[in-house]
This record gives sequence, C-alpha cells and structure tokens, in this order.
Amino acid sequence: MSKKYDVVIVGGGVAGNAAAMTARRYNPNAKIALIRREQRALVPCGIPYIYGTLRSVDDNLISDAFLQRRNVDIVLDQATKIDREKKTVALSSGGELEYDKLIIATGSLPAKPPIPGLDLKNCFFVYKDAEYLRELMNALGEAKKVVVIGGGFIGVEFADEFRKRGLDVTIVEILPHCLQIAFDDEFCEMAEKRLSESGVKLMTNCRVEEVVGTDRVEKVKLSTGETLEADLVLVGVGAVPNTELARDAGLKIGEQRGIWVDEYMRTSDEDVFAAGDCAEKFSFFTKKPIGLRLASIAAREARIAGVNVFGLRRRNEGTIGCFSTVVGNLALGAVGLIERAAKEAGINYVVGSTSIPDKHPATMPGTGRVWVKLLFDKSSKALIGGQVAGGIPTAEIANMLSFMVEKRATAEEVATFQYGTHPMLTGTPVAYQVADAAEDALTKL
Amino acid sequence: MSKKYDVVIVGGGVAGNAAAMTARRYNPNAKIALIRREQRALVPCGIPYIYGTLRSVDDNLISDAFLQRRNVDIVLDQATKIDREKKTVALSSGGELEYDKLIIATGSLPAKPPIPGLDLKNCFFVYKDAEYLRELMNALGEAKKVVVIGGGFIGVEFADEFRKRGLDVTIVEILPHCLQIAFDDEFCEMAEKRLSESGVKLMTNCRVEEVVGTDRVEKVKLSTGETLEADLVLVGVGAVPNTELARDAGLKIGEQRGIWVDEYMRTSDEDVFAAGDCAEKFSFFTKKPIGLRLASIAAREARIAGVNVFGLRRRNEGTIGCFSTVVGNLALGAVGLIERAAKEAGINYVVGSTSIPDKHPATMPGTGRVWVKLLFDKSSKALIGGQVAGGIPTAEIANMLSFMVEKRATAEEVATFQYGTHPMLTGTPVAYQVADAAEDALTKL
Repeated sequence: MSKKYDVVIVGGGVAGNAAAMTARRYNPNAKIALIRREQRALVPCGIPYIYGTLRSVDDNLISDAFLQRRNVDIVLDQATKIDREKKTVALSSGGELEYDKLIIATGSLPAKPPIPGLDLKNCFFVYKDAEYLRELMNALGEAKKVVVIGGGFIGVEFADEFRKRGLDVTIVEILPHCLQIAFDDEFCEMAEKRLSESGVKLMTNCRVEEVVGTDRVEKVKLSTGETLEADLVLVGVGAVPNTELARDAGLKIGEQRGIWVDEYMRTSDEDVFAAGDCAEKFSFFTKKPIGLRLASIAAREARIAGVNVFGLRRRNEGTIGCFSTVVGNLALGAVGLIERAAKEAGINYVVGSTSIPDKHPATMPGTGRVWVKLLFDKSSKALIGGQVAGGIPTAEIANMLSFMVEKRATAEEVATFQYGTHPMLTGTPVAYQVADAAEDALTKL
Repeated sequence: MSKKYDVVIVGGGVAGNAAAMTARRYNPNAKIALIRREQRALVPCGIPYIYGTLRSVDDNLISDAFLQRRNVDIVLDQATKIDREKKTVALSSGGELEYDKLIIATGSLPAKPPIPGLDLKNCFFVYKDAEYLRELMNALGEAKKVVVIGGGFIGVEFADEFRKRGLDVTIVEILPHCLQIAFDDEFCEMAEKRLSESGVKLMTNCRVEEVVGTDRVEKVKLSTGETLEADLVLVGVGAVPNTELARDAGLKIGEQRGIWVDEYMRTSDEDVFAAGDCAEKFSFFTKKPIGLRLASIAAREARIAGVNVFGLRRRNEGTIGCFSTVVGNLALGAVGLIERAAKEAGINYVVGSTSIPDKHPATMPGTGRVWVKLLFDKSSKALIGGQVAGGIPTAEIANMLSFMVEKRATAEEVATFQYGTHPMLTGTPVAYQVADAAEDALTKL
C-alpha cells in the first residue's frame, strides 16, 4: 500500500525540518511527509551542552509541534530504498511513500579515525541519537579523566562542557592549534588561553596512536611517546556524509563524499533534491568542493531546496562558511577565508584589524573587548573573510560580515557603512569595530 | 600670530574626534588641529548613564590620549570667527589658525520648547558640558520626584536611569507613544511595558503647559488639566544644530536648520566641510532633508569628511538611520523606515515578522526572546526598514539590517543569506530571526 505526497523528506535533522517548514510556507496545500527514524528530534549543535550547561539529553530534544502545526506528516520509520523509476521510498515497516519531489536530508555520521582501540567500552562518538547520548551521560557519571580526540569545534565545546562538570579533561589535536581549520593563529590562541585557564589540558601537534584497555578505556597512547590515563574517550574529528540511501539509488556522489547537487540543490535526478550534511558543498570563493558541514549551512540549503521543489527559484552560489562558538566566556566567530585558506587559494589579500572595548565609555559595568580581523581581496578590494572574538554579539557580528562577503562589499563600503551604536550594547561610534578594521585595511590597499 | 594647518577641525565631539582620527589615518604627515572649548571631551550617548549605571560625570569623560597618540594638536579654545577669504579661524584667546581645509563639527544644542517656567532652578536640559552635568548630579541628590519632558530616546534613557536611583519618575510625551518617531506601535508598547513594570509613570498624548515654582521647580501643569508635583524637570525633546559660526561665515543653511552639505560633506564653500549634528542630513530613501541626529551618523559623516579633505573619495548616499537603545533589560533597535514613515513617503511595502527564543534549545539557561520586523518595498522587493527587540546582540542585528538596506538587499537575498548559529549565542538555524522574517514577507510579495 503506498501513500502519495507532493514532497517527501528523508531525515528529521536541521535540513529535514527546515525543508519541511520552507516547503509548507511556499505551498500551503502541498502534501508533505517527513520520514524520521528517531522517536524525538534533537538539536545537533546542542549536543555538547547536554553535558555541562543543560541538565539532560531531554533538554536537548525538540517538540514536533512546529511540524504538526504546519500539517507535515511525520513518518517514524526507516527509509530503506529509493525507487527513482516508481518514485517511491520504501520503509522498513513494509510500506512505501510515493513522491513527486524527494528531499534527501540524511545528515552525517561521526568520522572514525583509524586508531586501534576505539571499539572499547567508554569510547564515544558524537552520534545524533538520544539513546546513545544517554549512555554517554551515564558513563560520565563514573568518569574522572576524559580524553577528547580532536580540537575542532565539537572537541573544544565538549571539553569546555566536561570541565564544567569538574572532570579532568585533555584535548589531543593533531594540528599545531585547536580550531585551526576555522581561525588564524591569534584567534586560536585566544581560545586556547581560555581553555587552559579553565583547566582543560591541551596536547597539540600530537596524535593518538592507540586507545588501550582490557574491556574498557584505560589509557591513551600518544605520538609523543606519552601515555594519558583515561576512563572515557570522546572522538570528535569531523563528520562523514550519510549517503548510503542515495548511493544505493544510483545518485552521483561528489569528491568530498557528499551527494552531488547542482546550484538548485538538485541531485543527479531532477526530482530528487539533497540538503544538509549529506549534500556535497562547493566554495563560494573557489567554486571547488569543500568538506564543511554545519547546521546553519544545512538550514540554508534546505531553504533553497524547500522552495525549489515547487519550481527553481533559489540558487546556491556556494558556501561561505559562517561559524560561531564559545570557549569559557569568550565567543568566537569566523566567516569565509582565513589567512591560511586565502593563501592556499592563491588569493592576494590585505588584513585589517582592531580591538576595542565592547561598551562605551569603557567605564560601563561589564565592559569587555571585541576583536575583529578582516581579509580583503587585494585586486577586487572585496571582503573575503572575517574573524571576531568577544561577547554574546560575536555571532551576529559574524553574520553581518557573512552578508558583506556574500554581497562582495568593498573595504570602502565596509568602512563607511551606516552602523548604530549604544553605550550598553556596542563600542564607541568613533571606532566601531567592523568599520575600523576596514579603515585599517584601506590604509594598505 | 597665526599657525598654519592642513586640516582644522572645530569641535571635539564625536564628529570632531572621528574626523581627526580618519584624517590622520589617511594622511600620516598632515598638520591637523582640533579646536575644542571643553577641558575634557565626553561621550554624548553616555550622558543618561551617568545618573544610574555609571557613578559620576568623570566616568563619562574621554582621555585625549587617542588624539595625542595620533599627533593631533588639541587647541583648548573657543572658535569665534571663520574668515573664508583668509582661510583662518579666530580664537577667543586672540590667536587664529590658518587652514587649508576646515571641518565644522560644532554639534547641536538642546531644543527648548516654548513652555513657560523652563528657566526655573532645577529645570535641566541635556547640555554636553561636564560642569552643567555635575550640577544636575548635585540637584538629583536632593530630588525625589522627577518629570521628564519628552519620551524619545534621551527621555526614555534618562527616565530609566533615574528610576535606578530610586527616584519617582514620570515621562510626559506629546505623542501617543514613547519612541514613536523610531518604532512602530508594537515595539513602542514593548518598551512602555518595561518602563511601567520598572515603576516609571507614563503620560502619553499629553503636553506640559507650564513648569510652576517660585524660584525652583515645584509643579508641572499638563494639558490634561492634571498637575504633577516635581522637584526636578529634565527636558529631552531633541537637538538643534549649532550653526552660529557657520551662519556668521555666510555658509548656506539647510531646511532642517543644519549646515548645508553636498554628498561629499562639503559646505557651500569647497574648502569647508561639515559633519555631525551641525550638518544637514538627507534621507537615503526620499533624498529629502531629515532632522535625524545621532552619534553614529556623526561618526560616519566624519569618516567621509576626514578622507575627503585630501581628495573627494567618499560619498554619502543619504542617511538610513540606525538606532539602538535599552529599556530595563530589553534592547531595541531600528533601521530605516518604520511603517508610519513608509506610508508618509508613499512607499508600498510588505511586512515580515517573527519572534523566536534567542538561544537553542530554549532550555539553555538565560534564554530570552528576539523579535524582528522587516519592511520590504513591494515593487523593488528591497529591504527598506527593520525593527528588532531582544538582548545585547540587538544592536548588531540592527547594524546587519542597516547594511542590508544600504545594499538594497531583496527579500530573497535576506531569506537565503548565509548566517551562522550557536546554541549559546543565537536562535535555531531552522528559524533564524532575520531570514525567517524575510521568508514571512516573501509569502506576501
């Protein structure tokens, strides 16, 4: 028995949910189904916060009310096969759904580095699965010494939350710095300083050779020859697109292992779209495939796919990359290219930077600092990247920079843009951070 | 005896300081002088905060180090006359400065409404003068009941600070709402709710007929027939450009009483520029003169004038208007046109709005809400205005919207722009406030 839908979405993560919301917004009458394995959806970016700031896995679950209110059929089942001829999705319970357009939003799975011992008890990965995450919570109850493998966003956020529980935490990172893929050295060092001050131990330039134990984790052997005692290991070294369903259906897979999509988020089959971690991404700057996977990118791709299932209206010009994170009480944000990436792409660039108090006058209670570093293309003078550190507004400053990058704003335009300021909310109008960093760059352009 | 400078700046407020900094940045060798009457410069936007959040007038003064470090000659004197033929500025101490280019940044003076009794003791205006502001501080020490005339930004901020001192505060506003020039009704009402909850009394739709007293303020008579007891009155009903020096020198004055300037910030004399509150402004949208005066606008005009004294490089396309303020623990921001202003300008517009938790999941400690309302031109689909309410990032969200307005971003561009999100810093990627408000508008466009 099959049920026919205008739009079938496979996956109930960020991309699936955003695609369903967008599709509904642009078509009040379409029949929309979302197939999801998980009983309850969860907030992927919230996962590290379960273990420190929040109190439980349940605090990180999302209600289905927003989908139900929008008359989206939630099908709690596992999609086992896509038949592109018949235009159906088979379910593990036996039934199938017929689609006019299909959106694959199957997300990603944690990457598993080739380290012996990762199958030991108390060695955890970041699965987006409430049951699994509850097991991690239980295991933490008895843990004292934790080793986090990987000093990227996930690793750093987990480490920072673990230490809030009073655990002894060590991050092992293969690169010279934590967060090095996203930030230039000086911003990585700001983050590392906060981590160290709060008691997190950092082993950078260092690889895990083996996780050792009889049945459970006991030790971690490092490339430096050292051995760390550990009763829990968390592996956070990136994510791999979950493309099994797409591959089995004969859809094209990209260089970076994601489902290949065109600028409208269509796969190699015109009736099948893909969005989020499972979809291949290409760079806004170089137009080459890139391995970036973020919830906010997933949401945007779903905003494109969710409209385009009803007609090709939105285009993806490529992924800029816009992140933010928090380490201790320091927020960090990054947009577009950092110096390392610009060099790699062969782009001749100029840097403008500044740091000012984040309120004015600086005698205002609670005044902190904000740091901004901007990269401009030397020939076009366009903004190609930005890094920010400071307080809570850091994320929105990064978002502003992202829009400036997207609109190819020149240094003159950034320097003279019409910002507002307020004593309690921003730095002084005379030296507003974003404009002033651009002014600094202009003296070198 | 006269001393010759490449650039002479009259005025040591936001525009004067920003012009000096910009001029120095773009010309390391120019001889630059800044003439200022005041012994110490102060932060204009910080003035209300002297009386609650800060502890003294001194906390709101600025050090001259940033000018001295940049080799700007600070001339503590009063400019009494500009001789445009000789290209000199006469000083009250008797000397004069010769200029190649002059920047007038003489700011504004508090507007004085035609209300009898405003010359009584304990009736204060918002003069940017440390001595005067100290007198207000002293007078507050003995005051119990304060009436604030004017419910715009200044009035509301003063009232909110006064009540933090435990004073009995009433705002008297002639319009139906506080902040009505800057915000649409629903945002005004959010602010009014916070004011009322914190104990500030609001008398809107109400005019002050007379301030009554023998030698000092005793009562305030209202247009409603009521009389309020008061031992201190603060008048905050706007600012009037301080153009005496310019007028005496024969420079053209604009419709809105500011010194007329072209798009390069030049006055009717090509060697004389003006910037900040003393300069006439015209609307980005209608190109007509407008009466908006803000520190951030002053800083931007000074960034234009401070470069253009060395060659016309930067242009002013007109003032968008980008504000932010704080009422209780609610921040409010506004950019460009509100509904009332769009109607007045005859622009056919569409509204998109949303409100979401400002962290995600909403179980994160300290989660508040953020409200966004966007106005798009119905024919061009371009963003023409935005209003935001929420936490500390409100100002930077407004700044982002301002740049979007400046770049004439369409609703599609705003809906699909590449934002980043983080559990502790922003709402969910699935419903990020700025994109989602644009999506809402798109369903009506």
